[in-house]
Amino acid sequence: MSNAKTKVSVLYPDGEGKTFDMDYYCNKHIPMVAELLGDAVKGATVEKGLAGGAPDSAAPFQAMGNIYFESVEAFQNSFGPHADKIMGDIPNYTNIEPIFQISEVMI
Amino acid sequence: MSNAKTKVSVLYPDGEGKTFDMDYYCNKHIPMVAELLGDAVKGATVEKGLAGGAPDSAAPFQAMGNIYFESVEAFQNSFGPHADKIMGDIPNYTNIEPIFQISEVMI
Repeated sequence: MSNAKTKVSVLYPDGEGKTFDMDYYCNKHIPMVAELLGDAVKGATVEKGLAGGAPDSAAPFQAMGNIYFESVEAFQNSFGPHADKIMGDIPNYTNIEPIFQISEVMI
Repeated sequence: MSNAKTKVSVLYPDGEGKTFDMDYYCNKHIPMVAELLGDAVKGATVEKGLAGGAPDSAAPFQAMGNIYFESVEAFQNSFGPHADKIMGDIPNYTNIEPIFQISEVMI
């Protein structure tokens, strides 16, 4: 992913009553996004929260998903036409309101 | 990093008056951590926040740093002896109180 300088992160904060279907996310949602966005997607990672920093603390986020693109424009151009379908799938795997961030990959 | 199933993330939330020295972080802090933790470190990534999900919104996090390990135990055993030195370096590059998360790499 050396040419993938743009990372789009979607973070799912934990909280009381919050649920997240990791199986659906990994096997349905992420593959759907990858198919819709096509060649613009240079890689994707998914992480499941295990713990926080303090001893015996809960993970702040139940899950994190990250998709890599060559540029912010490559993300916007590929995501825009499919935004409604992708966002509309979120209730199928979680009741968490996710946090979105677009980042520049430094290292 | 196929055998690196544990990801330790450090997130730096943005906010009024918050500062983050990306040059110091990439060129001093991360290399120091990598040297102290040695072979336990299987990879490291750093991202700089560009934007949020909504149009013209600010990035929720000024920066994110991630270090990959083979296991939670490999992280704990390598980090523990150097925790004070590593945590003590944080004020040298930011006034942000970071959020820590240990995650299992799913994809």
